[in-house]
Amino acid sequence: MLDLIRPLVVSNTTKIVLLSLDGLGGLPRPETGRSELETARVPNLTALASAAACGLLRHVAPGITPGSGPGHLGLFGYDPLRFQVGRGVLESLGIEFDLRGGDVAARGNFCTVDAQGRITDRRAGRIGTDVNVQLTERLRTIRLPGVEVFVEPVKEHRFVLVLRGPRLSGRLSETDPQTLGKLPLLVRALEPAAAATADLVNRFVTEAGRLLHDATPANMVLLRGFDQLPELPRFPEVYGLRAAAIAAYPMYRGLAKLVGMDVLKTGGTFESEVATLGEHWDSYDFFFVHYKDTDKAGESILAGHGWQPVPALLWSRYCGADPVTAFTERACAAGTLGTIPAHHLMPLVMANAQRLTKFGA
Amino acid sequence: MLDLIRPLVVSNTTKIVLLSLDGLGGLPRPETGRSELETARVPNLTALASAAACGLLRHVAPGITPGSGPGHLGLFGYDPLRFQVGRGVLESLGIEFDLRGGDVAARGNFCTVDAQGRITDRRAGRIGTDVNVQLTERLRTIRLPGVEVFVEPVKEHRFVLVLRGPRLSGRLSETDPQTLGKLPLLVRALEPAAAATADLVNRFVTEAGRLLHDATPANMVLLRGFDQLPELPRFPEVYGLRAAAIAAYPMYRGLAKLVGMDVLKTGGTFESEVATLGEHWDSYDFFFVHYKDTDKAGESILAGHGWQPVPALLWSRYCGADPVTAFTERACAAGTLGTIPAHHLMPLVMANAQRLTKFGA
Repeated sequence: MLDLIRPLVVSNTTKIVLLSLDGLGGLPRPETGRSELETARVPNLTALASAAACGLLRHVAPGITPGSGPGHLGLFGYDPLRFQVGRGVLESLGIEFDLRGGDVAARGNFCTVDAQGRITDRRAGRIGTDVNVQLTERLRTIRLPGVEVFVEPVKEHRFVLVLRGPRLSGRLSETDPQTLGKLPLLVRALEPAAAATADLVNRFVTEAGRLLHDATPANMVLLRGFDQLPELPRFPEVYGLRAAAIAAYPMYRGLAKLVGMDVLKTGGTFESEVATLGEHWDSYDFFFVHYKDTDKAGESILAGHGWQPVPALLWSRYCGADPVTAFTERACAAGTLGTIPAHHLMPLVMANAQRLTKFGA
Repeated sequence: MLDLIRPLVVSNTTKIVLLSLDGLGGLPRPETGRSELETARVPNLTALASAAACGLLRHVAPGITPGSGPGHLGLFGYDPLRFQVGRGVLESLGIEFDLRGGDVAARGNFCTVDAQGRITDRRAGRIGTDVNVQLTERLRTIRLPGVEVFVEPVKEHRFVLVLRGPRLSGRLSETDPQTLGKLPLLVRALEPAAAATADLVNRFVTEAGRLLHDATPANMVLLRGFDQLPELPRFPEVYGLRAAAIAAYPMYRGLAKLVGMDVLKTGGTFESEVATLGEHWDSYDFFFVHYKDTDKAGESILAGHGWQPVPALLWSRYCGADPVTAFTERACAAGTLGTIPAHHLMPLVMANAQRLTKFGA
């Protein structure tokens, strides 16, 4: 899709705002038969839906629940099955670690092992973040030949490990056997070029076990999701847009940075995000604005993200006639956008912004 | 899709019942303007449709009418264009022949040839099945070097030929020229490794012509659809489900066996299928139940299967809001499942059964 779009891009002075209401939509609540969107008073969204083309966006594939990474890459127009980003990289983005090309990042867990080294708790009793911070200080004393080692606390039992140096590879197996009663696994190279990196990681794990031996329940570490920064087509170049991201949460700033958007400094509230949008209105063609409150409020019935297609609306002077008059899951199912893969939205957005020429003569 | 699903599967105690109402849906009848589903009194399906997510399943591709094989492989989550099963294999499954890995199976027709050997009736006047049984007895006397020969009657003019032995190949051309007035074709090897098998089949055909010379109108045979058992990903392993099939008809039992389901012993009626479901409820996670009566009743206007997408409903606690309140072709077109490829249903089923974790962090 990106390869199709790129040669069709033409310049224009139109503005694009892509507003992600993270976590929408929802399921009908058993007691009312209505979803949150069907219950909420949202006069502005209702008015927008009446004037817009509506539909449902399907992230990834039918039945597949997207994490934040694949979910937002899709919104930016990248097929999340083609452009996969490892968990180590996403976790680094989530704490705004300055991950660089060539770095290898892994997601780490503190865990508990018994006297024989067998895992008895894969999450070390979900230790407090304060304990995590103390223990990552210990792990930062580990030195490995030829590389820099970064150990960054996330929260509870989770941390990020980053190795920085020449000729590293992220094609490594995981140490987490995913079951209790087993020893942590040795890391294996999944390609010949990863052999040296595998050795370094195994030395890190051995050393970590030594440094943590008296820190029960967090007396060992598990590492998974090894990966390097992927080489993604750069959003501003693919679409010919001066692109800026306005997001209060690190994960979404990191994802925007990953595709080459400028990440604007903003405050922690949606009001401050909107103010930032106003301040930079003249300097960019495209704004990705992330609204987090819906995500925090919305995880009611599944208690987590779902696989269901999510409501979407697209407004422009050229969006076309549409029968939908409410921004709800049920209403948007009848919209003229149809139920489409999320990464098909950006081409529609570009067309509506009069920024694509025709295909073929 | 199967490669995407497999690493996301998580265990759960939920139960899944996949009920195939074979042959649904239909077309509006000219005299009433209503399809069979729009005419029938089906209060349980109506109630289910009101509570469920509805949609239309498209088998294979637009405009393509599926046979039972591709139709059901799609329901099991296998893209029927990627996983193709030869007619010889399907015909063997349809008579519950115990086809084994390495066997080569073909679909056979008795036909009529004139004194010059030219085909005058490709179906031998659709001889009765009793005549078929007598003639296949004759063909069973054929001996070929190094292989076992099985000739199994199906019905009317149709039979199955199976060769069993080492180093056979199903990559063979067909003997049926598909037009009258021509000689049956010699079988050709479509790959070098099939040369020996082609020789064996040609010897079988020559010998069959000799044995049948006085059996006009069934005085010759035509063979097509040569194939071997395909190696399909095993359903229980892909989905992490203890899977059982309950079907009265051999074809559907065979298809279920082909993907690795346990095929349960059951009676010839739907009531006995339901009783079998109850008896085995605790022993399996997934049940494929096949209902044949709709297929027998439903072939009214096209007098056969059609290419039209077929109505489907999916119920779970998490199936989401849906405006559809009737289980008909027209009503389901407005459902939140949308019109989807049949092999996208299983991922949705797995998600609704809370048996898939999310993709990406």
